[in-house]
Amino acid sequence: MSNWIIDSSDFSAEKVADLGNQYFIGNGYLGVRGTLEEYGKDQLAAVNLAGIYDRHGSEWREPLNAPNALFTWVEIDHKAYQLPICAPLEHRQQVDFEQALHSRKTVWKTESGMLCVTAQRFASMANPHLICMEYVVSTDFCTHVTLHTGIDCDIWDIHGPHYEKTEMDVKGEALTVLATAGETKAQVAVSELVLCDFHGNQRIDCSDTKILREIQFETDGKRSYTFCKFISIYTTHDCSDPLHDALACSNQSAKTGYEQEKAAHIGKWSALWDNTRVEIEGDNAAMRALNYSIYHLHCIAPRHAESMSIPARGLSGQTYKGAVFWDTEMFMLPFYLYTEPKVARTLLKYRIDTLPGARAKAKEYGYRGAFYAWESQEGGYDACSDYNVTDVFTQRPMKTYFRDKQVHISADVVYGIVQYLKVTGDTSLLDEGAAEVILECANFYRSALVKRADSGQFEIHDVIGPDEYHERVNNNVYTNQMAKFVFHEAAELIRKLQRGCCPLRAKLEKQFDLNSMLQKFEESEHRLFVPQADKETGIIEQFDGYFKLENTSVEAVRGRLLDKREYWGGAYGVASQTQVIKQADIVTMLNLFSKEYDSKTLKSNWDYYEPRTEHGSSLSACMYAMSACRFGEPDLAYPFFMQSATADLNGGGKQWAGLVYIGGTHPAACGGAWLTAIQGFAGVSDENGVMKIHPQLPSKWKHMQFNIYFQDCIYSVEITGQDYKISKKDKK
Amino acid sequence: MSNWIIDSSDFSAEKVADLGNQYFIGNGYLGVRGTLEEYGKDQLAAVNLAGIYDRHGSEWREPLNAPNALFTWVEIDHKAYQLPICAPLEHRQQVDFEQALHSRKTVWKTESGMLCVTAQRFASMANPHLICMEYVVSTDFCTHVTLHTGIDCDIWDIHGPHYEKTEMDVKGEALTVLATAGETKAQVAVSELVLCDFHGNQRIDCSDTKILREIQFETDGKRSYTFCKFISIYTTHDCSDPLHDALACSNQSAKTGYEQEKAAHIGKWSALWDNTRVEIEGDNAAMRALNYSIYHLHCIAPRHAESMSIPARGLSGQTYKGAVFWDTEMFMLPFYLYTEPKVARTLLKYRIDTLPGARAKAKEYGYRGAFYAWESQEGGYDACSDYNVTDVFTQRPMKTYFRDKQVHISADVVYGIVQYLKVTGDTSLLDEGAAEVILECANFYRSALVKRADSGQFEIHDVIGPDEYHERVNNNVYTNQMAKFVFHEAAELIRKLQRGCCPLRAKLEKQFDLNSMLQKFEESEHRLFVPQADKETGIIEQFDGYFKLENTSVEAVRGRLLDKREYWGGAYGVASQTQVIKQADIVTMLNLFSKEYDSKTLKSNWDYYEPRTEHGSSLSACMYAMSACRFGEPDLAYPFFMQSATADLNGGGKQWAGLVYIGGTHPAACGGAWLTAIQGFAGVSDENGVMKIHPQLPSKWKHMQFNIYFQDCIYSVEITGQDYKISKKDKK
Repeated sequence: MSNWIIDSSDFSAEKVADLGNQYFIGNGYLGVRGTLEEYGKDQLAAVNLAGIYDRHGSEWREPLNAPNALFTWVEIDHKAYQLPICAPLEHRQQVDFEQALHSRKTVWKTESGMLCVTAQRFASMANPHLICMEYVVSTDFCTHVTLHTGIDCDIWDIHGPHYEKTEMDVKGEALTVLATAGETKAQVAVSELVLCDFHGNQRIDCSDTKILREIQFETDGKRSYTFCKFISIYTTHDCSDPLHDALACSNQSAKTGYEQEKAAHIGKWSALWDNTRVEIEGDNAAMRALNYSIYHLHCIAPRHAESMSIPARGLSGQTYKGAVFWDTEMFMLPFYLYTEPKVARTLLKYRIDTLPGARAKAKEYGYRGAFYAWESQEGGYDACSDYNVTDVFTQRPMKTYFRDKQVHISADVVYGIVQYLKVTGDTSLLDEGAAEVILECANFYRSALVKRADSGQFEIHDVIGPDEYHERVNNNVYTNQMAKFVFHEAAELIRKLQRGCCPLRAKLEKQFDLNSMLQKFEESEHRLFVPQADKETGIIEQFDGYFKLENTSVEAVRGRLLDKREYWGGAYGVASQTQVIKQADIVTMLNLFSKEYDSKTLKSNWDYYEPRTEHGSSLSACMYAMSACRFGEPDLAYPFFMQSATADLNGGGKQWAGLVYIGGTHPAACGGAWLTAIQGFAGVSDENGVMKIHPQLPSKWKHMQFNIYFQDCIYSVEITGQDYKISKKDKK
Repeated sequence: MSNWIIDSSDFSAEKVADLGNQYFIGNGYLGVRGTLEEYGKDQLAAVNLAGIYDRHGSEWREPLNAPNALFTWVEIDHKAYQLPICAPLEHRQQVDFEQALHSRKTVWKTESGMLCVTAQRFASMANPHLICMEYVVSTDFCTHVTLHTGIDCDIWDIHGPHYEKTEMDVKGEALTVLATAGETKAQVAVSELVLCDFHGNQRIDCSDTKILREIQFETDGKRSYTFCKFISIYTTHDCSDPLHDALACSNQSAKTGYEQEKAAHIGKWSALWDNTRVEIEGDNAAMRALNYSIYHLHCIAPRHAESMSIPARGLSGQTYKGAVFWDTEMFMLPFYLYTEPKVARTLLKYRIDTLPGARAKAKEYGYRGAFYAWESQEGGYDACSDYNVTDVFTQRPMKTYFRDKQVHISADVVYGIVQYLKVTGDTSLLDEGAAEVILECANFYRSALVKRADSGQFEIHDVIGPDEYHERVNNNVYTNQMAKFVFHEAAELIRKLQRGCCPLRAKLEKQFDLNSMLQKFEESEHRLFVPQADKETGIIEQFDGYFKLENTSVEAVRGRLLDKREYWGGAYGVASQTQVIKQADIVTMLNLFSKEYDSKTLKSNWDYYEPRTEHGSSLSACMYAMSACRFGEPDLAYPFFMQSATADLNGGGKQWAGLVYIGGTHPAACGGAWLTAIQGFAGVSDENGVMKIHPQLPSKWKHMQFNIYFQDCIYSVEITGQDYKISKKDKK
């Protein structure tokens, strides 16, 4: 049972930011950081909203955090009992990630006796607009207690403040806030209603930034005093009158009651786990970490939407501007694809719907077709700054090239679409715009090709690959291989369409000269240079000239840091002129295209690049894990798998890039852990529409069981050593 | 008369480095910094040798400085009278740059009376291996004087020490040093011989780093005591036994005597001035500055050699590793071409003889043909480091791209050759290798061309133009225009060759497929994209995307410096993401190709780019001056001309790039001043083998006279206002 609970039983103010990520709860519509009820902006408390952005002045655009209606604290004898200010006698915080319940218990020693506060909350999986909380106060002495609870509008923003107007009101029993964003005028409505199991005198205390109830009562030193709170959030992205809907929701929910809402919530989670729980015999730590990773992926799945994607830091805050990166397609998508394809479809629909943004970006940089946003926000707007990093020595912004030169992003989107089509067989996505995306991405890469005057070979110059420490390189293998893949898929799509005469063909022919495109894509696929493995060593050069860089170790390079926060990449970073790379690059490519390379090549490159990899990104470890599985060494993969699976469970990840805060959860690592467990260790793969299993469990793992969705069916897979059993579960 | 003398009559220790450049003397074989006789390495004393290099350990290779045989100081009562330690009562230093004589006079107040030292020296223009000095001591009281004079082997090196062995010896009357360089084992022999006009007791004092004479004598308080010194320097580049030759030379010279050697020296200078002096009526300051610039160009002309070029800082020290840059062909060459074409030939022969180095460099970077060294040393070895600048904040070397991406250098070499052929008509240079250089440079640019997959246009990507503050740009106009010029000249050369059947054609046909090359060069010339002037504004974009950079002023950018020594360019320099440029770039191109553009375009671009130019290079001002002359505004040109002409006369130039010392003389600015005076103000040009004059003097200038070499004849040109008179002087 404790396998499904994470908890900490000491209190340390230094851990507050980390715990905010570890004890995160969410339901895809919103995320609540694992902060305590009395926390405010200084402790990074946040109720983060999915897919709704705002820009303050000329600062970076980022997602909105809602006013925080969980805000609550206790006062006795004019003294506030609040962490982290007032040291506790006893403190415990936990998340039951099977039921997605956050709880805390804190005991303070007052001058007269003990004060105990417990609280439980959940972001309802049954109703994405609902957060419920139960808050219990008890004292072992008789005293006068003042409870302060309401809505805190003093919001933690990285690049805020975002609300130009915050209207606080009392509507019947409810407190409400209607906040209007400055740039977009989007409105966020929050309503909260409180039910007490005791009699208290209540008054409303409204300041500039908070609307709070003061509930005064006398304790008898024996019983506990409980109130439940029903919080609802709606925005103008959901409906025309979000305040009305939020109020209606919290009123209705209060009528339904805490226990019943909780039961509905747990029921939904239970159904999710039925399909997605992974059982591992012989390795409790791995099972726990993997299911905790899956928990996070569930918390951020946009089940409420038809077309929405997931930010790189999930819903844990505004880090990376709440933008959608290649993380989603390359690291998270497989999980949804193989467990809940409707979510995968929603993620890809987001890319289809943001095609106009990708077209505009291509045009901006002189390309044709679709160049997807490196950091995608609403409408495909690229939130990526040209200055992503701050120089720690001069405090100046440093010019970076992620936005304009990390061109592999369009291929990553196509890769996601193609995986979806293969695994689900659902070609309706093509009709709904995916075909256009594939063709436009191919058009983009065609326009990015260059050739030398006397060479017949196409090349791609001046890019950044997954290893962001080396900027502006030529013929990055990952990029070229992915572009080649796009040309192949686009050509294949046209050939398929031309074999019949479906409405899609007719529609696309109005828009494109398919014959000419087919000829160009075929030519591009065949003539695009992809650096190959050295015949003797089997090693592939990551980009033109990589082998000429200083051949040194990660530790040597780390030893050159003058400030531990300084950026390793850019023009003059400690890694830039060395072979030390940020994350899997060649190895990511080899994993994706493992069928085109022999095991020896996979292994040679793994052996060469791994010691040169900083793993400075949570996207790195799982690709090394996957790749090691590809060449049949699951025990070599295992520590990388665990690194990925425990990225958020253990916390303590990289918090800074230069002076920019990059903390938060790591859903790509969660997705990567799942990927390794299922596609790596269990060896699930798709071969021309047939699911294959090739198990190679780590030696500790005696038995493994999980369910998997494939071609419209769900299968239960049981693996014991080399043996496996697949049984169809039911129709999805 | 004082127009030909520079002098300073105060002493300031802070000026020592600057004066070392201003009071420089030299004869092309060697340069003697304008330091005082008692100076050592701390005062940057140096006898710099032309064209002989050495590398110490893994440091930068640089030219050798010879052991300093001028080293002399006076001792009275155990007290050393030396600047800068012992403050003088009176001090004067001067160079008569008509006669190329350096002299100094210093009076010290001793405890008993006045001590006066005067000294004169010259680097013989009649014998490049010879330096002569006359040193005079007088006191107005009777005292015992010890003169210390000999050879100081404690050499100022920027990246030394270079000599692994320094053998000091006494040979007859002479002191000698034979120093052997560590890397190359090249030997430098120095011999010195002293003749006194008084009787003194002499002993030899030999330490680890110096071999000195101690000459003791009693003064009578009335007369002065003079000795003359005859110094000779030979190296293993000159002969097989340099010590023998140096000894013979100083012995012979001592026999000849100081006055006679001086007369021979002055005679040579007088002949040089006869041909090169520029007379300007109405502007003494300009005349003085211009002739002083010409003086410097004479001091560094390698008249003793058949194949040698001139470093960017002349022979004033080891700055920039004593390497040859594009400065020579683009800024200095015209002076020699139009006054002493044999020197021009020697400079270009150096490029011909370093073709193997250029071929090797092209290969190193994956090109074909000849990619000349950005910083050329012996054999065309590229001394340019990949790390030219040191970060002032971290003290780390900064990766720079001068070596690999400043590809215009090969075109600059071709430009020089083509100018030589035009002005002299001497096609024998083609037979001696210049034809091969032109073809191989065209082959280089051909291999550097890229085209987009669906475009018929060739482009040149990822280069640095003359404006080094913007790295790794595409389609730098200067670079593309120059490459186009090379294609044109190479194609023209092949067409010419193919019209006859000379031995050169036969020779080249053995080496190259001229037909195929012709076709490629013609195609390249016609299809190479050169960004054109905007139709409305007339402005040409310096490179792709330049206009998208922040449009701000030089002053605004300067105001962002956190440390005045920090580098403006590179990835994160204050200028890098702005339109502020280091030096003339478009304007240099427009000057070279002025016939292809109308005056309006020249002026629009001047007006646009000048306020955005830092002029952070001594190559900048003269190009603005020249260009303003091209569109008929000599008075606009004038201050830029004066800036160029006074670069060394006034001193005080940029001394640092990051933490690297870059002081020294500025012969390119000297050449640029001459260029502006003769080709700009006097308007001398070559039109299809005919010399044209189109005078447009600055309003101050009433009259101008100079000689000019053209097509094997020397002409005297006299200009008064708009009128001019050309008369043939004599056969060269």
